Order: sequence, then C-alpha cells, then structure tokens
Amino acid sequence: MSNDYSVKPLNRDLAQALQHRLDTRTKPLGSLGRLEAIALQTGLIQNTLHPELRQPRMAVFAGDHGAARVGVGAYPQEVTIQMVANFLNGGAAINVLARQGNLALAVVDCGMASDVAGESRPGFDYLQAKVGYGTHNYLEQAAMSIAQRDAAIANGIRLANGWAAQGCNAIGFGEMGIGNTAAASLLTHFITGANLAEVIGRGAGLDDAGLARKRELLARAASRVAGRKLDAAETLAEFGGFEIATMTGAFIGAAQAGMLIVVDGFIVTSALLVAHALAPAVLDYCVFAHGSAEPGHVAQLRHLGATPLLDLGMRLGEGTGAATAFPLIRAGIACMNEMAGFDDAGVSTAD
Amino acid sequence: MSNDYSVKPLNRDLAQALQHRLDTRTKPLGSLGRLEAIALQTGLIQNTLHPELRQPRMAVFAGDHGAARVGVGAYPQEVTIQMVANFLNGGAAINVLARQGNLALAVVDCGMASDVAGESRPGFDYLQAKVGYGTHNYLEQAAMSIAQRDAAIANGIRLANGWAAQGCNAIGFGEMGIGNTAAASLLTHFITGANLAEVIGRGAGLDDAGLARKRELLARAASRVAGRKLDAAETLAEFGGFEIATMTGAFIGAAQAGMLIVVDGFIVTSALLVAHALAPAVLDYCVFAHGSAEPGHVAQLRHLGATPLLDLGMRLGEGTGAATAFPLIRAGIACMNEMAGFDDAGVSTAD
Repeated sequence: MSNDYSVKPLNRDLAQALQHRLDTRTKPLGSLGRLEAIALQTGLIQNTLHPELRQPRMAVFAGDHGAARVGVGAYPQEVTIQMVANFLNGGAAINVLARQGNLALAVVDCGMASDVAGESRPGFDYLQAKVGYGTHNYLEQAAMSIAQRDAAIANGIRLANGWAAQGCNAIGFGEMGIGNTAAASLLTHFITGANLAEVIGRGAGLDDAGLARKRELLARAASRVAGRKLDAAETLAEFGGFEIATMTGAFIGAAQAGMLIVVDGFIVTSALLVAHALAPAVLDYCVFAHGSAEPGHVAQLRHLGATPLLDLGMRLGEGTGAATAFPLIRAGIACMNEMAGFDDAGVSTAD
Repeated sequence: MSNDYSVKPLNRDLAQALQHRLDTRTKPLGSLGRLEAIALQTGLIQNTLHPELRQPRMAVFAGDHGAARVGVGAYPQEVTIQMVANFLNGGAAINVLARQGNLALAVVDCGMASDVAGESRPGFDYLQAKVGYGTHNYLEQAAMSIAQRDAAIANGIRLANGWAAQGCNAIGFGEMGIGNTAAASLLTHFITGANLAEVIGRGAGLDDAGLARKRELLARAASRVAGRKLDAAETLAEFGGFEIATMTGAFIGAAQAGMLIVVDGFIVTSALLVAHALAPAVLDYCVFAHGSAEPGHVAQLRHLGATPLLDLGMRLGEGTGAATAFPLIRAGIACMNEMAGFDDAGVSTAD
C-alpha cells in the first residue's frame, strides 16, 4: 500500500452561502427535500455557488471470481464475459439507462477469466486494467495477492484521474462479476462486524436451496481465516474481486479529484467499505443511489451512516441504480441554479 | 353531473406478452423492480408491446380558496397569484424540473382570486378555465355551487382531451393554491373516513401554533355539514377548490383518452379520490410519483392501494414530485424496448 490514499474532507466554507441560496429560492423552506441536500453537497465538492455536472459518466468494473465455479451464485461464471459482450453491443440495462441519462459509459476489464475483444466508440469506452484471469477460490486460499490488490487499487485511482483529466466531474459506479454478491457479503461481514448469515442474500436469483448452500460455503470461507484479525485491505485481498479492488481505488481517486460519486448497490458499496476504511473522507463525495434487495446492504449503510435516494426494488447491478438516480441529482442542482429568488420574483414569504 | 365520467378498465390482453418480453431481457427475473411494473402498465395503457411517451407534459392547476383568508395556511392568499406570475416567468421549481425532464408545461387558471396576464410560448401554455374568483370560505358555506363543480370537472375533461388531441399520451398533474392543503385534508377525511386531525399537516410550513389553529378551523368547517352524508362529489363542492375540481375532471379525461397519468402528492391525490369515486378504473392509468410529507397522504394511498415511486422528502407541490419521477418512467419503458434478449445476446440464463 505504497500509494497515496489520502482524501481531503470537504471544504465547507460555502456551506452557509449555499444554504442561503437554497432558502431564498421561491419555495417553502427545505421543500425540495433531498434534492436540496444533493445540490448543497455538489456545491461543496466543487466549491462553488453554481455547481454543474460536466461530462457525467458511468463506469462498470468487471471481474471474475474463482469461487463462482463452486456455486455461490445462480449463474455460471461464463455470464460475466457474456454480459460484457452484451455491454459492448449496447444491449444491457446499463447501456439503455446510460443513454437515457445522457451519461457516457466505460466498461473496465479488471480481471475477467478470459479476454473479451471489443472497441470503444463515442460515448462508450472499453478499458483494460486487468490484474489477473479471475481471482483464486477463496474457499482454498486468498482471492488475490497483496501485490494484485495494490495493483488493482492503483488502477482504480489512475482510471478516476484519467476521467477527471478528460473533464468529467461526476461518476456513477457499477459492476459485473458472477459471484461478486458472495464476495461482497464476506467483505461486509468482516468490515462491519455484521453476522455473516444475515448479510448473505439471493444475489441474482438463488432459490432456497441455493441460498442455504451459499451460506454454508461462505461460512466455510470465513472459517479459513479464523483467529486472524483482518483489516479492511486484508479482507479485500482474502475475499474480494479484482473489480471490487479496482473500485476501491476508483472511489479514492474520484474523491481526490473532487468528483461527485454516485454509489450503486450492495457490491459497489462493499468496495466503498474498503475505501472508507483507507480514507474516511471519501464519503463526503458520495451520493447513495438505491437501496439493494440484498440484506447486507442495510448493514453497509448503517456502517457508513448513509440513506439511499431510491428504493425501487432494483437488484440488477451493472450500476443501474446509480444511472437511474442521475436525473434526480441533475434536478436538484438545476433547481438551485435556475430557480428565481423571492425578491426577484416578487413572491411573499411565509407569515 | 351530466357528463360522461365512465372510464374503461385496462385491456389486459397483452399482459402476458409484455411480461414475457420483460422476462427475456438480459437481466435476472424482475430485477428492474418497479421500473418493470411501469413499463408493463404503460404497455397495457397503450395496448402495445412497444409503448412510448409522446409529448409528455406537466399541467399545473391553480385556484384560490376563500378559507385561505382566515388563516388555514402559512402563506397569504396573494402568493397563489405571485407564484403563477413566477411560473409565467419560468422561475419556479416546476419550470426548472419540467425543463430538466423535457416536459411541456401548462398552467391553468381554474379560479384564481384575480386575473393574471400572461402568454403562452413554445413548451409553455397558459390556459384559462376559470370557474370563479376563488371559492367561498367553507367555514361559512359550500366552497362552490354544484354548477361550478360540474363546470370545473367538464373543464378538466376538455383540457385533457385537448392535450390528447395534440398527441400527448402522458401527463403529470400539479397544483398551486394557497390553502389547498387544508381543502385536501377535508376531502381526505370525508372520502376515506380517516380521522380529521390525523390528516391535517403543516402544509407549506405552519408552526405548532399554526397547526393547532388549522386543526380547530377545519374541525369547525367539518361540523358545518354534521349529520349529512356526503358522497365524494358533494364533498368536493362543500370543501374543494376550483383547481381540485378541474383536476378531478382532468383525471377522468386523461384516463378516457388512454394517457399515462403521473400523480403528484397530497393535493393532487385529493382530486384523484373524487375521480376514483366517480370512475374507479381511473387508477389503472395512474403512477404515483412521490410520498408527501403531509400525514393525510398515507390515508389517501391506503384508500387507493397505491405506493409512490419516490420518497425524497419533497413537499413543494406544483407537480414537482411528478416531474421528478418522469425520468424513472422513461427509464423503465426504454429498458423494455431497447434491451437485448437472452437469445439474441447469447447470454446464459440462471441454472
């Protein structure tokens, strides 16, 4: 961990001026609810009274998990690669939602089990940041080496810096990796201290028998490190995925670059747990998009003190929750910037 | 009530085919949550496997309330007119949110206490459908005559038909009228049977003393009709507003025209209570946008069996909740239309 993982807390110098601007718009005090909080947060991140989203984008981080081959999820491991091909062809939910939200989309191969050919095109980047051909099976050994973990984190920081250098100041995170819900459960258990069984869910659609098997397998995986006291970064190496480690770095890099970060569901938040352990101020830059159907998301949100904007019963991954929330973020910022003030509009205030 | 208030229930012939289309998109079954339900509902309303929103718009219905002059709200009655002037100048929250959502906006004078000059422009219609110069004070007499009520309902039906004739197939409802939260509380009490005190809230920002006074005034208003058994339409005439009566008609007209209707918060839903009593099938055409901070909204939603999409702590009115929800509706429809199927994309299904 030789990288610089430090993140500066927000400069709150403009907080009062931003709040005043919100309070003098032609509406009852606070009546735009969470849209106001987002506008204020974005103003603080950008340190301006007139924040704006520039070149907002989604980034989907893909990787394979050795444990997927022993049945911790509903889908075969090949689906990671098939879905990335689907992303490349523009046919997945995240393609549609990114188009709907006028968001550029990047798909990053952080460590899929094989190479998938594909090309970038306007509005769509296909990027290579491959640390290995899938992780090891964490039932038998650490998912990745410390060197791989640090390389993946460094990749994430580098990627986020690259997007920032291109002029992007808002990014939503998503992921694709068969088996990564299981990895996220293990990370959540070890980092938040929540009971393991209570943070294991059905992932992309396990039935009761599949869920029971997943619980048994993950309990066995956890017992492999029994007696050791793991910190968050060690937990990431033991049980994480290359896409989760890369996202950990991307969280840190995006916060260092002063970007607004839109956090998707359970798996993305598992990477944020690690980033938060390394650099607590990363949270200042985050908006939580959607409450996951995975039970472990509740433990994550409690640990981070966060409440998501949306609860639409989505459980698709790919960053679909984050992409769906982007229009709400735009709406909050636009209201602060574009609404008239009481004085200008000649509107009376409350008695 | 000589108008035709009948609304046809949805033709559900395509329900299975629409569900099949959703289930064969490249995602775990049901994993887009409520976005899938919206896509299916829109397909049924439009009776097609490829629904689309055409010329979607917001309509804001404005009217004044005689009771506002005796202090049932936090703002003076003049604010209705001042805010409509703000709409005309493009400076209100609903202007910003309609622009953000690429929604045309219509503002309808259903009965403001005076005339406000203003002009239509591309994307913005200012329409006159005035039934009177504010309602009577319902503490002393019925807010409006039966003839006024029926004229307002007929106006609403005619307006909705006009928008449909222009090619619009999706409409969000909003309102502006100082004192209309109080009117909505009375309607909610009489139509749902909920306890009056429990459906009275702070409106646009009453303090504790203001809330206590509002409770006392509305209890007195309700006692004026003690012993009479009012149906929903009679309740509308006794306590409603011209904007609420016009929305009642617009709900019916929009459903008759086969439009998707996006329902805002507490006041808009009070009009829907009346429309639902007159034509229960109107609900088939409705999406509920946002849960209001007004306590009475819970009783309304329970009565209608509805759950809103959003809960962002918004309590601004003007249709801001509906406008904020429109991008989610677009997103659900786009996913069904544009996502690849498992077969086409060569993606394996769950084990």
